[in-house]
Amino acid sequence: MLKRTHTCGDLTLDHVGQTVTLNGWVDSWRDFGGLVFIDVRDRYGLTQCVFEPEVGAELQAAARELRSEYVVAIRGVVAPRLPGKENPNLKTGSLEVRAKELEVLNATPTPPFEIKGAEANEELRLKYRYLDLRRPAMQQVFIIRHKMAQVMRNTMTAGGFLEIETPILGRSTPEGARDFLVPSRVHAGHFYALPQSPQLYKQVLMVAGFDRYFQIARCFRDEDLRANRQPEFTQLDIEMSFVEDEDVMTAMEPMVASMAQEFTGEAPTLPLPRFEYHDVMERYGNDRPDLRYGLELKDLADLATETEFKVFQLAIENGQRIRGICAPGAGLKYSRKDLDGLTEYSATFGTKGLVWLKVEEATLTGPTAKFFTPELQAKLRERFDAKPGDLILIVADSQAVTSQALTNLRTRLAGELKLYDPKSFHYSWVTRFPLLHWDAEEGRYAAEHHPFTMPLAEDLPLLETDPARVRAQAYDLVINGEEAAGGTIRCHDPKIQSKIFSLLGLTPEQAEEKFGFLLGALRNGAPPHGGIAFGFDRLVMLYAGLTNIRDCIAFPKTARGTDLMTGAPGGVDTRQLRELNIRLAD
Amino acid sequence: MLKRTHTCGDLTLDHVGQTVTLNGWVDSWRDFGGLVFIDVRDRYGLTQCVFEPEVGAELQAAARELRSEYVVAIRGVVAPRLPGKENPNLKTGSLEVRAKELEVLNATPTPPFEIKGAEANEELRLKYRYLDLRRPAMQQVFIIRHKMAQVMRNTMTAGGFLEIETPILGRSTPEGARDFLVPSRVHAGHFYALPQSPQLYKQVLMVAGFDRYFQIARCFRDEDLRANRQPEFTQLDIEMSFVEDEDVMTAMEPMVASMAQEFTGEAPTLPLPRFEYHDVMERYGNDRPDLRYGLELKDLADLATETEFKVFQLAIENGQRIRGICAPGAGLKYSRKDLDGLTEYSATFGTKGLVWLKVEEATLTGPTAKFFTPELQAKLRERFDAKPGDLILIVADSQAVTSQALTNLRTRLAGELKLYDPKSFHYSWVTRFPLLHWDAEEGRYAAEHHPFTMPLAEDLPLLETDPARVRAQAYDLVINGEEAAGGTIRCHDPKIQSKIFSLLGLTPEQAEEKFGFLLGALRNGAPPHGGIAFGFDRLVMLYAGLTNIRDCIAFPKTARGTDLMTGAPGGVDTRQLRELNIRLAD
Repeated sequence: MLKRTHTCGDLTLDHVGQTVTLNGWVDSWRDFGGLVFIDVRDRYGLTQCVFEPEVGAELQAAARELRSEYVVAIRGVVAPRLPGKENPNLKTGSLEVRAKELEVLNATPTPPFEIKGAEANEELRLKYRYLDLRRPAMQQVFIIRHKMAQVMRNTMTAGGFLEIETPILGRSTPEGARDFLVPSRVHAGHFYALPQSPQLYKQVLMVAGFDRYFQIARCFRDEDLRANRQPEFTQLDIEMSFVEDEDVMTAMEPMVASMAQEFTGEAPTLPLPRFEYHDVMERYGNDRPDLRYGLELKDLADLATETEFKVFQLAIENGQRIRGICAPGAGLKYSRKDLDGLTEYSATFGTKGLVWLKVEEATLTGPTAKFFTPELQAKLRERFDAKPGDLILIVADSQAVTSQALTNLRTRLAGELKLYDPKSFHYSWVTRFPLLHWDAEEGRYAAEHHPFTMPLAEDLPLLETDPARVRAQAYDLVINGEEAAGGTIRCHDPKIQSKIFSLLGLTPEQAEEKFGFLLGALRNGAPPHGGIAFGFDRLVMLYAGLTNIRDCIAFPKTARGTDLMTGAPGGVDTRQLRELNIRLAD
Repeated sequence: MLKRTHTCGDLTLDHVGQTVTLNGWVDSWRDFGGLVFIDVRDRYGLTQCVFEPEVGAELQAAARELRSEYVVAIRGVVAPRLPGKENPNLKTGSLEVRAKELEVLNATPTPPFEIKGAEANEELRLKYRYLDLRRPAMQQVFIIRHKMAQVMRNTMTAGGFLEIETPILGRSTPEGARDFLVPSRVHAGHFYALPQSPQLYKQVLMVAGFDRYFQIARCFRDEDLRANRQPEFTQLDIEMSFVEDEDVMTAMEPMVASMAQEFTGEAPTLPLPRFEYHDVMERYGNDRPDLRYGLELKDLADLATETEFKVFQLAIENGQRIRGICAPGAGLKYSRKDLDGLTEYSATFGTKGLVWLKVEEATLTGPTAKFFTPELQAKLRERFDAKPGDLILIVADSQAVTSQALTNLRTRLAGELKLYDPKSFHYSWVTRFPLLHWDAEEGRYAAEHHPFTMPLAEDLPLLETDPARVRAQAYDLVINGEEAAGGTIRCHDPKIQSKIFSLLGLTPEQAEEKFGFLLGALRNGAPPHGGIAFGFDRLVMLYAGLTNIRDCIAFPKTARGTDLMTGAPGGVDTRQLRELNIRLAD
């Protein structure tokens, strides 16, 4: 084998005159004016090789037989390209290799789709994943993925965190989603479960005194796959001892800044802004608002009492909310038809109507403008700090409907009005989520995160009097309106834990049965502790500028959980099942 | 919560006079001369705190109530210890914290075993793993484990390797060991398999042009667990393109040297020595010899013909081998009883006898010495370069029995005679393993590594004439007699691959059925490629100076595959099984 001396991205004009060998794939070939041009590609780049008549008929004929994606070794001399033939879009575009020797390392049939062509349909791409991954754009994704893991591990290690591996063959625990199960051969009728997260193990590691743990961990959920969900996914999992919520956020920020610096060339100012859950729900109708633009929701209940407008009066009588947003410039830009479209769009979130008011020089106009006196119009303008040309949109409905409709209108309008640079990044923390919510169906409270979450110290008395108002020591990192990470401080105090269990409707015996060994660990010298988990695949998607999670995973599964390349899951023979003490259901 | 200002390993005499807060576990407590001493421990160290009478009766009483493993916060002032009270074995042994404030962060019942006491029995340790892992010796193991992953990742990244994650939910493939299976909920009667290694995926990644891949990967084998085997284990998995065997070994050596430097303070000279399989089998009777000592095996067939000794004559007639070793000094040290012990020991490897000869000043002595003429004795002496006081041990039997008996005698004698520093490390490559061996039972050849291994180029003609003599492009890294890593160059040439399949007794159709998608990938532009895998758990064990693999894994399983802490595997309810389309066998 003619082994490479350089990669296809290495050569520069400094190498002119040197004899080099390249190994790679034939990216393209052309026969032009008695010259045979072969572009050779590898992970590092692409270099043009040329077989001139001087090399003889035999070698030229061999070069003419090369086809796309043949694996070749070419030895030759580096030369500058002829003037005017340079390719400024290519790293090696100023030179070529004048070939002297050729070895075909592997021939290949015509690929089912062109590597450098337009993107093939996804089914074909997944089936021939080895060809799909050969596309330079895909290789870039996995270079980003590698670098992201490096940045995470280096910053975590610098922060005194130890990476510790936790088991994949674990025990089924009631964590919400459905477990993947693995039948045990030795223990008939018993099953391992693949972990939905290393949650319980990482808490145990804190009890064990490891102080600061992290792991880039594989997690599994046997759920029906929505778009952008995978049955196995990766998270950066973290846990710390002797901390409160603010400590965890502070400890994470250098890593977040390093990632931003690495992948966007710009680190956010630290500390990142913190917003309380109740505040962002009020201002943006959403617990993970995209803060690259304003368009804040405003409460209009006080102003609504000043109009005869029936819709508002009814809403007030029913204890509903009247809220709105003001979109700058949209009054000029949106036609009547566009506004009907917005009304329809808001209806998909349950609204029964959408009040719109265009802001003119002196007045507000629109079908319902007549219900607003000039004084009230002035107050509305002032509430939104509205300028002529703006558009005010108002919804009167329940808390949930006004939030959902307005947060979605907000996102849509910001996009349509280009209110932000889609390549920009905004990072913030949302904190103090509710600890519990009332589950009317079950007639008990349910945990908002998980049942081991610690209440905010100042809210502890509310556990007795008004549990739904207790705020948790919980925090999410939001990037551009996506939940990039989420975590909580855990409850290490047995008395508080018992109180929470009873609110969740669990007797101490039931709690023991459900959460067995973790409670044992917590009783045996648990330090105050808490953690967080970052969605690794999602961060790759964000920084690679992608929208399909399957493009961020080397060997992903379809929405039906199939690996089209290997055919997994597959059939197995009955001997295997017999050994595992199971049978197929009839 | 009184949050720590320093860890329990931070303080030095430079901090004297400063008010500090420590968080940690009560390591020990004593009440002495009106003073209450509390040693507080965390992952970073241990610091003595003292509650003096000046702090008041109430605080002293609270300190007196502390017990082992309580989680505490103590605030106080750093002071030098009284002269004569320093503890030079402790990093913080020259100082103490004069406590002013105490907060009990968590009380705990008396632990089932003492954290700083002697090691408890393993069952108890595994059940209360959170306490077992709290022992500083165990924490050191996981610090080593973390650092090892760091060294590997940093050297791999510096070498241009990309870490790429491959699926855990894969397809069952015929790789030798038994697969763990995961029933699919969506595809009734179909199963995922947990990977025994990422072998097929990493080859696919080479076809995809990733050029240099690595992954610290979890692997699974549902085998009966011998000592020091775990159902899930970790390996550093590597694959490279456009390489031959020598290239892979060369590429790995900087990482091996970095590990050695990090964990032993001394890097081996590079390149590491390379030995051919046939050579080490001849010289040490073993394909992973411990080269920290000599004690080489010598062939004595030629000398054996010169004696009337029946055992040797019979062996020669039967085409068997006559081989021996010479243990320096053992002639003086070993009694008749010891020698009987060695004879018995060698019998466990199938020998029917063990010839021993003590090397005296002028002669050899021993029960069979009379069969050796003075000339022959002189030749034997010379063959072994034996000195007076040495002991010659000879076995006449088959190749396999002489190898096994003598390699084990060699190891035992080197240990008993202290022929090497047990803390020293020796690194070497063993190369050119046989590609195939004849499987008499099946009436065909069987692959020594896996069926995709590439033969040595110079041995290709032997595929036609004498397949058992074909050497593979295979290489193992041996450290102190342990296989630390093993790999091969893969067969990317369809013609050679077909030939190997036919030797393995597979028709093209059977090969396609068995190895389906990998063959498809190999046909679609596979570059020459090969790789290697390092046993990660084993390397931790080696460098941490441990002998039990369970001590190197945070949450290991017993020999019966049970996690004693969580109780995995556990029962599941029938609803779960119904969803998975399986039933328990009756």
